[in-house]
Amino acid sequence: MLKKLLITGANGQLGAECRAKLKPLAETIRLGARHGLGEAAPHEEIVYCDLGDKVAVEAMVEGCDGIVHMGGQAIEAPWDTIRNANIDGLFNLYEGARKSSVKPRIVFASSNHAIGFHRQTERLDAKSPTRPDGLYGVSKVFGEGLASMYHDKFGIETASVRIGSCTPEPDNHRALSTWLSYDDLIRLIVCIFNVPRLGCPIIYGASNNDAGLWDNREVGYIGWQPRDNAEAFREKIEASVPRPSGDDVLALYHGGAFCGHDIHED
Amino acid sequence: MLKKLLITGANGQLGAECRAKLKPLAETIRLGARHGLGEAAPHEEIVYCDLGDKVAVEAMVEGCDGIVHMGGQAIEAPWDTIRNANIDGLFNLYEGARKSSVKPRIVFASSNHAIGFHRQTERLDAKSPTRPDGLYGVSKVFGEGLASMYHDKFGIETASVRIGSCTPEPDNHRALSTWLSYDDLIRLIVCIFNVPRLGCPIIYGASNNDAGLWDNREVGYIGWQPRDNAEAFREKIEASVPRPSGDDVLALYHGGAFCGHDIHED
Amino acid sequence: MLKKLLITGANGQLGAECRAKLKPLAETIRLGARHGLGEAAPHEEIVYCDLGDKVAVEAMVEGCDGIVHMGGQAIEAPWDTIRNANIDGLFNLYEGARKSSVKPRIVFASSNHAIGFHRQTERLDAKSPTRPDGLYGVSKVFGEGLASMYHDKFGIETASVRIGSCTPEPDNHRALSTWLSYDDLIRLIVCIFNVPRLGCPIIYGASNNDAGLWDNREVGYIGWQPRDNAEAFREKIEASVPRPSGDDVLALYHGGAFCGHDIHED
Amino acid sequence: MLKKLLITGANGQLGAECRAKLKPLAETIRLGARHGLGEAAPHEEIVYCDLGDKVAVEAMVEGCDGIVHMGGQAIEAPWDTIRNANIDGLFNLYEGARKSSVKPRIVFASSNHAIGFHRQTERLDAKSPTRPDGLYGVSKVFGEGLASMYHDKFGIETASVRIGSCTPEPDNHRALSTWLSYDDLIRLIVCIFNVPRLGCPIIYGASNNDAGLWDNREVGYIGWQPRDNAEAFREKIEASVPRPSGDDVLALYHGGAFCGHDIHED
Amino acid sequence: MLKKLLITGANGQLGAECRAKLKPLAETIRLGARHGLGEAAPHEEIVYCDLGDKVAVEAMVEGCDGIVHMGGQAIEAPWDTIRNANIDGLFNLYEGARKSSVKPRIVFASSNHAIGFHRQTERLDAKSPTRPDGLYGVSKVFGEGLASMYHDKFGIETASVRIGSCTPEPDNHRALSTWLSYDDLIRLIVCIFNVPRLGCPIIYGASNNDAGLWDNREVGYIGWQPRDNAEAFREKIEASVPRPSGDDVLALYHGGAFCGHDIHED
Amino acid sequence: MLKKLLITGANGQLGAECRAKLKPLAETIRLGARHGLGEAAPHEEIVYCDLGDKVAVEAMVEGCDGIVHMGGQAIEAPWDTIRNANIDGLFNLYEGARKSSVKPRIVFASSNHAIGFHRQTERLDAKSPTRPDGLYGVSKVFGEGLASMYHDKFGIETASVRIGSCTPEPDNHRALSTWLSYDDLIRLIVCIFNVPRLGCPIIYGASNNDAGLWDNREVGYIGWQPRDNAEAFREKIEASVPRPSGDDVLALYHGGAFCGHDIHED
Repeated sequence: MLKKLLITGANGQLGAECRAKLKPLAETIRLGARHGLGEAAPHEEIVYCDLGDKVAVEAMVEGCDGIVHMGGQAIEAPWDTIRNANIDGLFNLYEGARKSSVKPRIVFASSNHAIGFHRQTERLDAKSPTRPDGLYGVSKVFGEGLASMYHDKFGIETASVRIGSCTPEPDNHRALSTWLSYDDLIRLIVCIFNVPRLGCPIIYGASNNDAGLWDNREVGYIGWQPRDNAEAFREKIEASVPRPSGDDVLALYHGGAFCGHDIHED
Repeated sequence: MLKKLLITGANGQLGAECRAKLKPLAETIRLGARHGLGEAAPHEEIVYCDLGDKVAVEAMVEGCDGIVHMGGQAIEAPWDTIRNANIDGLFNLYEGARKSSVKPRIVFASSNHAIGFHRQTERLDAKSPTRPDGLYGVSKVFGEGLASMYHDKFGIETASVRIGSCTPEPDNHRALSTWLSYDDLIRLIVCIFNVPRLGCPIIYGASNNDAGLWDNREVGYIGWQPRDNAEAFREKIEASVPRPSGDDVLALYHGGAFCGHDIHED
Repeated sequence: MLKKLLITGANGQLGAECRAKLKPLAETIRLGARHGLGEAAPHEEIVYCDLGDKVAVEAMVEGCDGIVHMGGQAIEAPWDTIRNANIDGLFNLYEGARKSSVKPRIVFASSNHAIGFHRQTERLDAKSPTRPDGLYGVSKVFGEGLASMYHDKFGIETASVRIGSCTPEPDNHRALSTWLSYDDLIRLIVCIFNVPRLGCPIIYGASNNDAGLWDNREVGYIGWQPRDNAEAFREKIEASVPRPSGDDVLALYHGGAFCGHDIHED
Repeated sequence: MLKKLLITGANGQLGAECRAKLKPLAETIRLGARHGLGEAAPHEEIVYCDLGDKVAVEAMVEGCDGIVHMGGQAIEAPWDTIRNANIDGLFNLYEGARKSSVKPRIVFASSNHAIGFHRQTERLDAKSPTRPDGLYGVSKVFGEGLASMYHDKFGIETASVRIGSCTPEPDNHRALSTWLSYDDLIRLIVCIFNVPRLGCPIIYGASNNDAGLWDNREVGYIGWQPRDNAEAFREKIEASVPRPSGDDVLALYHGGAFCGHDIHED
Repeated sequence: MLKKLLITGANGQLGAECRAKLKPLAETIRLGARHGLGEAAPHEEIVYCDLGDKVAVEAMVEGCDGIVHMGGQAIEAPWDTIRNANIDGLFNLYEGARKSSVKPRIVFASSNHAIGFHRQTERLDAKSPTRPDGLYGVSKVFGEGLASMYHDKFGIETASVRIGSCTPEPDNHRALSTWLSYDDLIRLIVCIFNVPRLGCPIIYGASNNDAGLWDNREVGYIGWQPRDNAEAFREKIEASVPRPSGDDVLALYHGGAFCGHDIHED
Repeated sequence: MLKKLLITGANGQLGAECRAKLKPLAETIRLGARHGLGEAAPHEEIVYCDLGDKVAVEAMVEGCDGIVHMGGQAIEAPWDTIRNANIDGLFNLYEGARKSSVKPRIVFASSNHAIGFHRQTERLDAKSPTRPDGLYGVSKVFGEGLASMYHDKFGIETASVRIGSCTPEPDNHRALSTWLSYDDLIRLIVCIFNVPRLGCPIIYGASNNDAGLWDNREVGYIGWQPRDNAEAFREKIEASVPRPSGDDVLALYHGGAFCGHDIHED
């Protein structure tokens, strides 16, 4: 059991899910966000902090033996936003980890958008080359690289989870392939903290979908077997969402709509 | 939903199965064969046509947005038969598709006999080299090549399904590995018409058999998960069919008995 | 059905399991060991024999059309012990097979210790290079090589089963990955004797564990689908066994504790 | 040394080159074409024959222990032309080989157009999937499949040579990658007839070009090391041929201009 | 021939080399640096500019159809330095390229430090996973990701050259493997601008060293065959530089000394 | 420079070659054999010793920082001979290395007969599965496994050199592929002792033959580029040695004649 688990971005959708369900993992849960965390429950600590503020981030990280890093910018945005939250912010987080009195294990919320420009007709695994689909995706490539370096050089273990479509239900045709249920996400995080030796793996965050695109066989040692399946929602989606044409980015690329976004200018 | 689905070879075993079960896929089902199609049911159209007759084939294909091509010669035969039905006939079909007022998506009934001379001790996937086991198998290699070219050059999408042993039940030891149930075949065809972007994949047509030889992981995006399993028939087969010796073509090669056939002379 | 199945090491844990459950495979079971086999049951024959005694081994093997070779030294030991039982002994067994009046099919109890020094963060299959973790593991590399040569040169088929942790229950964290249930072992042996053409495969002997490390997809043709799963015992293990640290050989290597053993001197 | 070497298409460019330079390979050279072979030199035999005429082809092949098959249709053409020369014609040739009183070794002039729709930015080897770029290319896929089957089933050895751009000099930018000098072609054919065991390899026919696209390392056992290099002609080409734009099929695809041809209708 | 080639970092060692030797590539050479460019020669333009200044960078890039980006921070440094020059600076460069009136082709000076933590006993190619060896290396992973995205999304072609040890002579044992001569670098840049279709390749920048570690076979289409060989300097190095011990980072890792550097704090 | 280099089997053909040419590598050369070493030259030490004598072997190894192990049984032989020299003997050598006051680096004379039953039409590299072609080949598989284990467990570095046909000249058709010149062997050994970090590689010992079968690209870091080429002897061989038929083991398998030998009985 962990002594202190930090959940960043704890006011976001996934952060809140982690807050609600990861209590059994640690004696204390430290919750980080810029705002909106409400009141601390028993065994919770609340830290308000901007990821771009190095001193504050290092203080937030100090003393935590586990980190679930859901913080940062979670969709495409102008460069300054991405750079501050996902590049400077992540550097600050790892510097905190390096300097901390205890060496934390980290779950890094990477994204399928790190490989978004591969075609859906191509299956990917952890060794597939990255093909980011926007500035957000490039920031995730940066993050996986940073995690790799802190592992090789300082022994900090990170699981980079390339999250697919993590929503209550899959809600479009692409999500029949990319959906990650909340329960499967939580089970994955538990596995990551339970395995005696983690190393620095890349893991695709998708449920056990019939139409899955990603191959996690290389990380069998983690012991994660997702149980949910987007196929259960196919009829509902077919009935309510127009099927994209074969030339639509939604149908062509792993990254879907992100592949069609232009650079967001300030 | 398709406007008009053409099923060729509709008087054959698999064609009849498709006729019976694919109705929900299309507003109209056009059935093609040389003879023996009986009376048209509601929403059915019947076309009698020899695949070697280019004008007739092009007329049959015109206006169909989906084609399940079960027609042609389905077992080893003299060259003239194979050539007329599976080489000239397939060229005629694709020319019909190219010239049609609507661009059809095609299911091409390829065969395990395109890779029949690989050893059963070797697992295959879609990238394994072809090793046809007779003139019939060579005609399927030709067909997959033709489909590939019409896709690259004209954008016509085809799923080449290398059908294993598609029978009501597996009925010999090799079929414990190669069996494809009728239900799994139908589910596969439905998946092929449902996926927004098909591309031009090669798919092994086998059920979820414990002793399977073929790996479809590269086409996970199709969303097809076969449900039947030949293992359920193992006891019955062991009780009724002599187990082949280890030096028998039935035990040595993916293609089984076809590997032992001589060239069929006229 | 086999005429005569030889089970060596029949007084050991796995040998006894085979003795109890493999009866349906053969008309007669011949049991071999140095001692301790009790009374022969109906359809059983008992042969006392040291594997290092070439004449005795050849006599024991004569006339058997199946061999389950569980005999030999099963854990790390001084060189003379390993050499006598696993190197000389195995050579004697294969010479017996070569000279026998019937050509036997052989199950060779190899071991995960043939690949023990690979990291647990790396997934292995039958083509992964060997990395033995001690003299015992080196003797298994020798044995797999010997089996390969007798197959290529003399047509004797062997399944080299790299057994994981074959115990009634998984009893430590590593075994959550490496456990092989007795039932899955027995089912595997049955499959090996049933497949018409075996060849000379390497098979990882592990149950269907959520946290499995080994990939058997290349031997799908055997038809073995393990059914048990060590995950069912995770809670019990977590409650009763201290989790190893990430730098412990138990957490680092496929071979676990064997990787930490020094050479056993006489 | 061969007894009798058949060169088909001996009136074509490559056939004539073979006629001029392969004399040392055989006691007798039999030359086949539809017309235009002039007078037979000493040790030459001339046979006029249409590849579509089965009886004539079988007679031409009878008694030859080596065949260099340069005959057939060598560029894109209407279907009937391709089908007659490259499909029916090749079947006739192999039937002749099968029925002949001596088993010939065959050099089959396949073509880079069997893989023409791969991108030039992608390196290919013999295991790369075929992607034919027209009816001509599809006929070469057919031919390689036919050769494979006659090897597996009847033991007839064929080298399928995917010829690049075999001309006196490379004469455009793509040929800097795809050029095969006449001398390298002749050396290759000599190697093919000298190796004691040929099997049924696919070999890319290109010289040792700095900008080469194809990898022949799998066929090192043939002993062919091409010596010419298109780079010697780069300056001349840059000075005389406009460099294609990056979106031109000449720059995009292995098959170059063929990828832009429409189907040739009669 | 290019209209206008921008060389950034033109006052650095490699930039100066490019300035001296790339004149034949373009009608005009625009030289960029923060300072120290001396006087413009005929056909040269000089632009002083900080890479972190977005407006200035976009102005510098405007109108150039080729860019050799040697600018930025070239060794390990504190985060702010790396971030400003190699992350913000590179983003500014690509935004300039995207907005420019002509679409430039870019040579990006990436580095072996993007893969520095792989062991020297392991050979790498362009598909090997990145393993950066410091903040500098991570910034190169970021840069390659950015280049990939601007290619997939906006069609801007980049060659990411993972430069080894680009010095007048190899001067230590590791450089016997990693040396890139100035002449080979220049020849590579010429090839990159000459190939009609570049795509977005990763190229290892090393000469034809006997002890090379990197495999460029996937980019044969570029036509670059390095001609120099560090082996010519082996005796001199052995005589003047102490051979590192086998446990030294110089001997263990592709990245050499960088793997031993701590994070540079401001 | 080494302090003391042990050459075992120094009275054999290759051992004598090493004795003559490796002097520059070490201050002292210790020569081991059972007999026939003549007089010690300056800087030479002579040790007579049977490899099966553990005490004697350990004394021979003590104090050597380099070992070229050419000793042992070098061709097929009865089991007792192989076992004593190549199994017990090699164990004794590594135990000597483990117990020695200095940790030696070892060149182990493995053999192509460790992979001899692969077909010549198949190219091999260090990761190809072993397929030994006799008891001798099995002993080499054992030896490579032993070397791997002493490296992983005790840090002893070994280069396992799978020697092809090491003779003054290639003298048959297979040797056109497998020949290793004496000079290339010596250069290889020098490289092995010069590289700062060796690890535990498998290296194919063959010259730069046009018809080579083996791929050493994974060990580029060693810096060995063989310079001789068996092709220079092709005419001589063709003139003096009958070309084997395609069904001869000489033409079929990497191991050549060894694949045809029966077990040598005492």
